[in-house]
Amino acid sequence: MTDARRRHDPSARGFASDNYAGVHPEILEAISLANGGHQVAYGADVYTEHLQEVFRAHFGETAEAFPVFNGTGANVVSLQAVTERWEGVVCAETAHINVDECGAPEKIAGLKLMTVPTPDGKLTPELIDRQAWGWGDEHRAQPKVVSITQSTELGTLYTPAEMAAICAHAHERGMVVHVDGSRLANAAAALDVPLRAISTDVGVDLLSFGGTKNGLLLGEAVVVLNRDAVRGIPFLRKSSMQLASKMRFVSVQFEALLAGDLWLRSARHANAMAARLADAVRDVVEITRPVQANAVFAILPADVAERVRKRFRFYTWDESTGECRWMCSFDTTEEDIDAFAAAIREELS
Amino acid sequence: MTDARRRHDPSARGFASDNYAGVHPEILEAISLANGGHQVAYGADVYTEHLQEVFRAHFGETAEAFPVFNGTGANVVSLQAVTERWEGVVCAETAHINVDECGAPEKIAGLKLMTVPTPDGKLTPELIDRQAWGWGDEHRAQPKVVSITQSTELGTLYTPAEMAAICAHAHERGMVVHVDGSRLANAAAALDVPLRAISTDVGVDLLSFGGTKNGLLLGEAVVVLNRDAVRGIPFLRKSSMQLASKMRFVSVQFEALLAGDLWLRSARHANAMAARLADAVRDVVEITRPVQANAVFAILPADVAERVRKRFRFYTWDESTGECRWMCSFDTTEEDIDAFAAAIREELS
Amino acid sequence: MTDARRRHDPSARGFASDNYAGVHPEILEAISLANGGHQVAYGADVYTEHLQEVFRAHFGETAEAFPVFNGTGANVVSLQAVTERWEGVVCAETAHINVDECGAPEKIAGLKLMTVPTPDGKLTPELIDRQAWGWGDEHRAQPKVVSITQSTELGTLYTPAEMAAICAHAHERGMVVHVDGSRLANAAAALDVPLRAISTDVGVDLLSFGGTKNGLLLGEAVVVLNRDAVRGIPFLRKSSMQLASKMRFVSVQFEALLAGDLWLRSARHANAMAARLADAVRDVVEITRPVQANAVFAILPADVAERVRKRFRFYTWDESTGECRWMCSFDTTEEDIDAFAAAIREELS
Amino acid sequence: MTDARRRHDPSARGFASDNYAGVHPEILEAISLANGGHQVAYGADVYTEHLQEVFRAHFGETAEAFPVFNGTGANVVSLQAVTERWEGVVCAETAHINVDECGAPEKIAGLKLMTVPTPDGKLTPELIDRQAWGWGDEHRAQPKVVSITQSTELGTLYTPAEMAAICAHAHERGMVVHVDGSRLANAAAALDVPLRAISTDVGVDLLSFGGTKNGLLLGEAVVVLNRDAVRGIPFLRKSSMQLASKMRFVSVQFEALLAGDLWLRSARHANAMAARLADAVRDVVEITRPVQANAVFAILPADVAERVRKRFRFYTWDESTGECRWMCSFDTTEEDIDAFAAAIREELS
Repeated sequence: MTDARRRHDPSARGFASDNYAGVHPEILEAISLANGGHQVAYGADVYTEHLQEVFRAHFGETAEAFPVFNGTGANVVSLQAVTERWEGVVCAETAHINVDECGAPEKIAGLKLMTVPTPDGKLTPELIDRQAWGWGDEHRAQPKVVSITQSTELGTLYTPAEMAAICAHAHERGMVVHVDGSRLANAAAALDVPLRAISTDVGVDLLSFGGTKNGLLLGEAVVVLNRDAVRGIPFLRKSSMQLASKMRFVSVQFEALLAGDLWLRSARHANAMAARLADAVRDVVEITRPVQANAVFAILPADVAERVRKRFRFYTWDESTGECRWMCSFDTTEEDIDAFAAAIREELS
Repeated sequence: MTDARRRHDPSARGFASDNYAGVHPEILEAISLANGGHQVAYGADVYTEHLQEVFRAHFGETAEAFPVFNGTGANVVSLQAVTERWEGVVCAETAHINVDECGAPEKIAGLKLMTVPTPDGKLTPELIDRQAWGWGDEHRAQPKVVSITQSTELGTLYTPAEMAAICAHAHERGMVVHVDGSRLANAAAALDVPLRAISTDVGVDLLSFGGTKNGLLLGEAVVVLNRDAVRGIPFLRKSSMQLASKMRFVSVQFEALLAGDLWLRSARHANAMAARLADAVRDVVEITRPVQANAVFAILPADVAERVRKRFRFYTWDESTGECRWMCSFDTTEEDIDAFAAAIREELS
Repeated sequence: MTDARRRHDPSARGFASDNYAGVHPEILEAISLANGGHQVAYGADVYTEHLQEVFRAHFGETAEAFPVFNGTGANVVSLQAVTERWEGVVCAETAHINVDECGAPEKIAGLKLMTVPTPDGKLTPELIDRQAWGWGDEHRAQPKVVSITQSTELGTLYTPAEMAAICAHAHERGMVVHVDGSRLANAAAALDVPLRAISTDVGVDLLSFGGTKNGLLLGEAVVVLNRDAVRGIPFLRKSSMQLASKMRFVSVQFEALLAGDLWLRSARHANAMAARLADAVRDVVEITRPVQANAVFAILPADVAERVRKRFRFYTWDESTGECRWMCSFDTTEEDIDAFAAAIREELS
Repeated sequence: MTDARRRHDPSARGFASDNYAGVHPEILEAISLANGGHQVAYGADVYTEHLQEVFRAHFGETAEAFPVFNGTGANVVSLQAVTERWEGVVCAETAHINVDECGAPEKIAGLKLMTVPTPDGKLTPELIDRQAWGWGDEHRAQPKVVSITQSTELGTLYTPAEMAAICAHAHERGMVVHVDGSRLANAAAALDVPLRAISTDVGVDLLSFGGTKNGLLLGEAVVVLNRDAVRGIPFLRKSSMQLASKMRFVSVQFEALLAGDLWLRSARHANAMAARLADAVRDVVEITRPVQANAVFAILPADVAERVRKRFRFYTWDESTGECRWMCSFDTTEEDIDAFAAAIREELS
């Protein structure tokens, strides 16, 4: 019997983030199953070996997956794998790598982020061109990567066609395309396409594939789709402090997520909950972004937000406008949505 | 039911590393207990909050713990917290930070490692002085940290008095002392002292406290003992990509390890198994290092090593001399030891 | 007699950049004068020692000058001296550190540049606030420096009052102010104020003081005005590869520039030439920026620019609009201006 | 007339370093000759263009030279050009990159230096093998470069055959060879061979070619001999803050040094002066290193050193043994040597 004690109410949920949720029971079961006995450390275990097949089933025969600890790690290892020391990364101003990683891409990889303002968190070929220029000019960090987030930090989606256009545009310029896919499952579920339709099939070179926000205890993966575009990932993963010694426990979580349809069930559910929430409050609040995945953005007066927040956690996205962000996760229930919507309506009235 | 499958023999164990072992059942139970419901991400959860008390009970009232993913992460975050951009770290040539981290201290933190050859993996004031000089000379990276490993990479121990002498020596020179304590529990168990007797009480400023090698799924902690010596750990942890979003699951493991005596039981057991192994083969092989914690180093002819390795995994430490390293862990059994010793004797004869 | 040969026409001048010009004769004379005999290397020579007085006469008693090789070096050493590893720098999108240094601040110092679009290359308290927020949030690089350029990359000027407002605003937020002063002399000359009126007296903490663009062979200086704001400059200068061994030859150039009024004569002259040029073509081209220092920005049709460029070098600043940049320097003559203006008029007609 | 004043005695010389000397008159003349008029900045000038021919005459048709500011800059740009982010550099413990650059290779390039103790500052294939191993092991920075210094920091020389053996050894292992040639001219002069005999012809891939210690005002060059081994030098030079805007003045110095025999005259002279000094004191002091280039190492009692130092500057190399270093330079005279030797004899007696 463990000396640790339960210190929280396992029935309390909110809308702050999909990483406030815990571990999906099937994931926990998989961890248990991989336990016992010895396995080679640092990824030479049978679970990590098998994981390659699991990823190839989704992303095609060229895919290769490198489990890492977290999303920032996946992004920064990915970006290093496709760049020289003097190259830069074109991304949206709202990209997670730009606003939420305490400068890790700059600090760890020395990379310049070449940001572009966007209306909806999405790059386009035209927007990319605002930064993708100046090759050969030694005074300018050389644009080498286009990094997009799918689904975006604003809850919006790229269609496969939009992604294909970005990839074609980048490749014509000798650039590579990285996808921050911490919520790629939500995007595939929302678009009702397989994962490869928004990655391999549209020309993406490599991606950060998210597990944590879709029910893992922890785990993300650098997934290489175009092996010619990358170099040195094992060394970069280790020197970037992202190499798990007991990797079997990260890999088996991904197997549990991806071998069957858990990834899809969980993502669909989270998306559906977001849609239900938007529908439930649309008549009383302004929904500020298209609700395409598992996020809802809406305006609440500051005092209302404050009162609702006493019952359900969530973040104010933009203090100046009162825009709030409500995230749904695999464990959000219809009852949670209905109670939250009721609370909003109540506090607004 | 998970789609993941068991792919390994949970009864197979070897002597390659204490991180080849899996998760202690009490740790897994603790993870389960922390599951369910929502908790604030990135460390503002109740488990991480409570963890501070747990660490203070061991390390004293000034202690503050910052859970991270792995040992390299703990070391590199620690070293950054006590250095300026132009400072250096004095360590043994055999230190993990020097030989096993793919250059992460140099690459991530820009730090110069100022290494000293040692007979047994241990620094002394005299050995430290081979590198600790040149303050004020702008041509030399400024020595700021003494980093020692307890128990060392060679399975040896510092006595509390030896650590106190190192700390006094460093502090007199304006330096700080970091302990790579990925096996600090093994050291405390072997010395039969509380953890604080080889950290807080001897003047250590901060340490990397290991969990993974003592039965955690994953988890290490930067433990600050002298708050005046450090700066910016929350920012360094995030920008060094060591901030877990679902941190409750790392923290609760440490609670399970440290709230009772699991840490001590497991470490004592691993140490005892190493002693048993050394005793069992001492008459047929040369034991090359004092067996003071959970490692045994011994010479095997290359062909013998090859044959034994077919039955039990372990590493050859030095190809040139045939020195092998055998690590014991919390789950090593007496039967494992006896079978391994028998295999060695058999293949030698 | 040297084996080197003159390979260029010393009477040919253009408008491409103030660093296309050579060395002012008085500067060359000063280099000669410091030659002969031995002097302590790396800055412990009598010229560098004396230089402190020269800088203090301009910047006040607290000033301390550290000669370096070039402007990027001065900027990146300066920024490191006032930041921790996790901090960021608020600057205009058009800042030299952002667009012309191949990512050196990110690569060398790991700093995040937090850029703000501006109409005229100038920050204001309001514009600074678009990036100066989020202190204490570990997910965000911590804004620590406001870096402004005086005169700006667009040839515009901050008034002393504008600078004072920026410094007060920054200091209230615990930030420090850095001035990229590669053309600070031009600014002081144009504003008709002493150098300290746009540095020390308005609260600037440290600056990159330019020499190269004002007639030096090469040489810039990190000038510290607020010693409490900086740390470790000697070490940062050396480890950033900006420490000249024969420093006397950099220092004596600055003495020649600053001990008398050469800095002012040269800067005034360059500014006057820019004004003359603007006046000479204002009726036939659109001048796009206020002509306040030694730069003129104006629109030329692409084919016209191409033809004029065959006679006088200059850069097109913005291919999309046809905006060109014409820089004047200490050696630009009235005849140069008149000939250039005539060429523009001729090719336009 | 310049406002700068002569502040030193141009007839005073010592033995502290070859960079305590000033500028050779022919070099100063060359600078003058390149002055006047405008030249394209950042290396697109006619002097830098012509310089390629000058270097090719010495180093062969594949040679390409990139002028930079100083030796640390040349070394760190060179090392970056041949490494990936996770690679390391094998060098002697006494190498300038290890002991005299304030950690710049680690800080700027993130490189791990894999040092080897040597008796005389020289690596050999056997010594290289102490660090050149572990390829493919992600836990170890990957050995990629062998960096040797010619002549060494201890005043010793590699013969062409020794260099060829090192290059062959390195190349067989997929490594490249860099030469820190801040005193390559002294080595060539001492060996009485052309520069290419100790660079191109023995298989060196790239080198830092020194000018400053051989009479330049300032200037070193990254010289690429094997273009297949390097990447991105223009970008690395700029982002490493080593790109001179008025590069013509660096390039023309190299032309003056290398187009005729100034490099050889100056180096031969400095070497001859060192030999004269060694001969003059050999009977009264212990010469501790072979005197092969322009350095003499010898033991002096501390009090004697102190007294001699009041008349002639020099450095104590090793406080513990009393070993002193005496450097000769292009401007050391026979009278200087004789006076210095007399002073030593006098103070010893």
